[in-house]
Order: sequence, then structure tokens, then C-alpha cells
Amino acid sequence: MRGAVLYAPHDVRFEERPDPTIIEPTDALIRVTSTCVCGSDLWPYRGIEPVTKPTPMGHEYVGIVEEVGREVRTIKPGQFVVGSFFASDNTCPICQAGYQSRCLHKQPIGALGSQAQWLRVPLADGTLVATSDIPSDDLIPSLLSASDVLGTGWFGAVAADVEPGKTVVVIGDGAVGLLAVLASQQLGAERIIAMSRHPQRQQLAREFGATDIITERGDEGVEKIKELTDGIGAHSVIEAVGTQESMMQAIRSTRPGGYVGYVGVSHDVKLDGQELFFAEIHLHGGPAPVRRFLPDLIDRIWKRQIQPGKVFDLELPLEQVAEGYRAMDERRAIKTLLRP
Amino acid sequence: MRGAVLYAPHDVRFEERPDPTIIEPTDALIRVTSTCVCGSDLWPYRGIEPVTKPTPMGHEYVGIVEEVGREVRTIKPGQFVVGSFFASDNTCPICQAGYQSRCLHKQPIGALGSQAQWLRVPLADGTLVATSDIPSDDLIPSLLSASDVLGTGWFGAVAADVEPGKTVVVIGDGAVGLLAVLASQQLGAERIIAMSRHPQRQQLAREFGATDIITERGDEGVEKIKELTDGIGAHSVIEAVGTQESMMQAIRSTRPGGYVGYVGVSHDVKLDGQELFFAEIHLHGGPAPVRRFLPDLIDRIWKRQIQPGKVFDLELPLEQVAEGYRAMDERRAIKTLLRP
Repeated sequence: MRGAVLYAPHDVRFEERPDPTIIEPTDALIRVTSTCVCGSDLWPYRGIEPVTKPTPMGHEYVGIVEEVGREVRTIKPGQFVVGSFFASDNTCPICQAGYQSRCLHKQPIGALGSQAQWLRVPLADGTLVATSDIPSDDLIPSLLSASDVLGTGWFGAVAADVEPGKTVVVIGDGAVGLLAVLASQQLGAERIIAMSRHPQRQQLAREFGATDIITERGDEGVEKIKELTDGIGAHSVIEAVGTQESMMQAIRSTRPGGYVGYVGVSHDVKLDGQELFFAEIHLHGGPAPVRRFLPDLIDRIWKRQIQPGKVFDLELPLEQVAEGYRAMDERRAIKTLLRP
Repeated sequence: MRGAVLYAPHDVRFEERPDPTIIEPTDALIRVTSTCVCGSDLWPYRGIEPVTKPTPMGHEYVGIVEEVGREVRTIKPGQFVVGSFFASDNTCPICQAGYQSRCLHKQPIGALGSQAQWLRVPLADGTLVATSDIPSDDLIPSLLSASDVLGTGWFGAVAADVEPGKTVVVIGDGAVGLLAVLASQQLGAERIIAMSRHPQRQQLAREFGATDIITERGDEGVEKIKELTDGIGAHSVIEAVGTQESMMQAIRSTRPGGYVGYVGVSHDVKLDGQELFFAEIHLHGGPAPVRRFLPDLIDRIWKRQIQPGKVFDLELPLEQVAEGYRAMDERRAIKTLLRP
């Protein structure tokens, strides 16, 4: 088969890779019908995470099950499936508590590389969720978004205790941040303040439910948020960037007793214990346990209550994957959908 | 009146101080019947927090109301009262959310110095809770503990999501840690693992409900906790020290999706964002909003359901305050009760 391989910063190639096969009896083999480029793929692409050898890329996927191992019980060939970026058994105590991204037997899909024609998915019964039927084509981008960015934004909103009537701030206007806006709207937030200085992303944030836009960053951004929240900060703040500046902005924008949900993969962040102590906020986040939310998210998409697929503003054949990365790197695209 | 004043590290004196008076119409003036030395008083006493000028000490107190300002409505002269270490109006949005320690009009009692014969308590109606009657003498230590250490341990347990059936780890065997054990027992924890290498404190931890004692610290302590929790860590971990080692021990002892409640005042702690991200825990803490818990805690003490006053293993007249500090500094005493 063919798929995307990162050789060095800014050098992603579409090339021949070994065909995956069933290895474990709990595996499923799927034909990838859509995949995409993640904001987190840009960290190695930009060389901020080292690339030490040619690395298959991608961890988001939807597709058709072609074959299953002999111990797979619920997933069947022919089904259309959505999975998360961590394979999980969905039965261990950590999964049962809703943290499938930390399953005791988790396996990262990123190590297998979903930006390809075929994908072996470990722990298929625990990882994959099948739709009730083959979806119509217009639902595909939204279902694909559930594989990571929608589920991640949703987790950020849940971690930030978004509830009806609450004021929410979303830091980060990438796909995850924009979908955290959508999640907050779905979870009943009264006011949703999106931080963005990019007109097209501001527009999408408003479509997804943002009531206010703030263009300032860092401590200036914090001041603006305070102005909109009676001087005391927001109940819920979702951090979807992962830098020192954005994390401190999140903490400082939250009222005492409020909640920060952080889903931006953390890079070179150091939190000062004393500031955190006296901030007196709740802090929760990490790699999103997308599997926890998948059945609900698929249901909302299937009923056309939400259109998270709007974050894909560039669609390319998989063979043009290099351009897909470039467009996101240069912020010409929010998110690139790739069709093998 | 006379009271305790810290002049320099290890130099605390009992000396004449100005008599407090009603300044604001919302003040109450109380005759302090018992006060005590806090673990946090040891930070400046040891010179870890700078002492730049003679500083009145103390923030824990119970006493009899002698006089109230003209706007005080519910607190009356003659009542026995317990208050927290932050004066709070108990009506602002932050107080209403249960974070009276971050009240928009908060005033630290520590700045007034409760290790004295008299104390002016600002925002009396919001700060003080009166008992139904004058308590019998045996209840005084327990009621005094509610002013800070019991309330702080309780907040740690609540922040760590202690619930019936859960496994709890308590890091720190000072008064707050020991009372976090008691709080966890009262909140229904099934298993309570106390970290302590001090036989007398281990004994008290067991009296308060600890089911297991671990003497190792740091990463060795983490390993022992993992051994007791099927290799995955505890659901709830209460951090009651405030150092880098104890904070990291807390985070590493918690299972993914679990909760760290931190109430040890943070000193020189830096948290690595990436480790925190992949730990995927809940983190909450800070200066305990003791006022939130006071009515419930006083009720449990009044009914003799709990005896948190056992943490006082040294009782001295206030004039011997210097010995009270020394005994705690040298870990000869867990906590010193002082009677003016």
C-alpha cells in the first residue's frame, strides 16, 4: 500500500509501505476511506519534536472493516467504523473510569500511521465504534473529526466543567479549539469567548457558538477576559495550544474555584507551584479519552445536530499529503482531510 | 494586650501589642480562648519565608465575642465562635461557589495575629460560625482544629474526590495530613494509605482511620503505593506538605483519571507540563475555603462523631509560645495549643 512517511522536518513523502495484516487475534484491518493531518503532527513536521528515522504518520481515521482477528466479537467486516488515536481494550479499570487514552493495554495508532490506504487497528472491539449504516458522503468529514479533534475539544470542555449557564473561554483557534467552542455550545454554555486573531477562524468560531471574540494574547488577553467576566475570570477555560503562554493565560483567566481543561499537547511548559496554589483552580487534561465520547458524538453527527466537519477547509487526495502539511504549517488551512 | 511577635527566624516573643478595637462596622472583637501554631507558621519561623519586620503571628482561633460593629447582624456578644484564617463576606460570587478563602473582599487573619489575647475579626457575619452553646472544655481543641487544620485536611479530601469505596493516599503526617486521614474516613474511603515514618504520628493516623502505613518517600514511596493499588495508583491523593518531592510523589501515585488534592503551601515547586499532561490526573487545591465546611465540621465535633483535637499533643499557656514553636520545629510536637 501507499502512505505518508516523515523523513525530516518539512519532508513528508507519499510512498510505498508494507501492507498491514492481522497480527493479534483482537486486530481489525480497515480500508481507510478518510484520514487527516493533526495539529500535533506539526510538532515533528516543524522539527520541534525530533525525527530520528523515517516515520509513518497519522492517527485519525474512518474506514471500512475488511478483516477481523478470530477473537474480535462485535466489530464485523463491512462495517463503517470510527476509532480514536489510542487503541484501548475498554474493559480495564482505567477504561471503565472513562480514561481509554490511558488504557492499561493502550497502543498508539500514531505508531501505525493512519495516513495510508490500510490500517491495522489493535483491540478492535474496544477501540472502534461502528455506525448503524454506511454514512452518506456529507457526514464523512464530521465522523472523521470525531476520531480526534472533536473528541479532544469535547474532552477539554468536559474537563473544564462546561455546564449550562456557565461562561467559557477557549484558548487556541486550531481545529481542537474551534471544536471546543462547538462542544461548549452543545453542553449548554451561556457565553463562549474564543481567543483568535484570524478572521476565517473567528467566523467559524461564531458559527460553532462563540458569543465573543478576543484577539489579544497573554496577559493582555487575560485582562480582556476579566473585563468580560465582572473582573473575576471565567468558570471554564479550555486550553488547546500547549505552550507556556497559553497555559498561563488559561490559569490566569479562570476564577478561583473554576476549571481549566487542557488538551494542547504540552511543550516546554513549567507551572509555578505557588502561582498554581494561590490560583485555586481545578486543572485537568491530557490525551483525550476520545473513545468515552465516540458513541454520543457519532449519534449527534448522525442526527445532523452538529457539523464539526466544517473544520476541514482543505481536502486533498492522500498522494498530495505533503501539500496538506504545508497548508496547515503555513496556517493557510485549519485542517486537511485526505482521501486515500 | 499581649501576643506573639516574630522578630527573626527562631525568635518569637510574647510581648505587649496594641489592644484591637472595632474599626469597620462589620468587625467583631473576640476574646481568644484558644489559639495554636500552624505548620505554615514554621515557614517564616525557619527563615524559609523572609521576616522583614516584627510580625504578629497566628491565624487560628476560637473565642467569645465581646463586641460587634453596628452592621453585624448574626454574630452576637457572648457567643462562642470559630472562624477561618481568611475573613470572607460569604456573599460574593466566589464565596457562593464555596471558595471563601478567595472571597473578593477577603482579609487574612494572619495579618492581625491570633496568637494573642484579643482579636479583631473583619466581616464577622461572613467569617465566624457560632456554636449553639458555650462548649464544654473537652471540645475546645477539636473546635480550634476546625479553624484551619481540620478544614484544610477536609478540603484536601474533597479536592481529591474522596468518596465511599475509594482508595486514598495521604502525603504528609503533620496535623493537616493526619486530619486529611480523618476526613477521608468520614467521607467513606475504603482504604486510606498514610505516608509516615514517625511512630507516634502513624499511631494517630491509624486512630483516625488509616488502613495502611508507608514509610518510604519520593519515588520509592510511589512504588509502594503502586504495589498496594494493583500497579495503577490511587483514585485520590492528598498532598499536605508543599515541596517538590511531595508534589511529584502525589502526582505519580495517582491513577490516570484520578485526583490530587493539594493543601500543603507550595514552596519552590515547578511542575513539568509534559509530565502533568501525560499523567492525566485532576489537580485542585490551594488555601482551604474552611468557611465552606465549618458548619458541618462543628456539627460533627459537637455530636462527638470526630475528635480532631487529638492532633494537639502539646498544650501551653500563650506566654510560652516560643516553646510551642520550638517543639513543632523540632518535631517533638505535632501541634501546639496555646491558651491566652
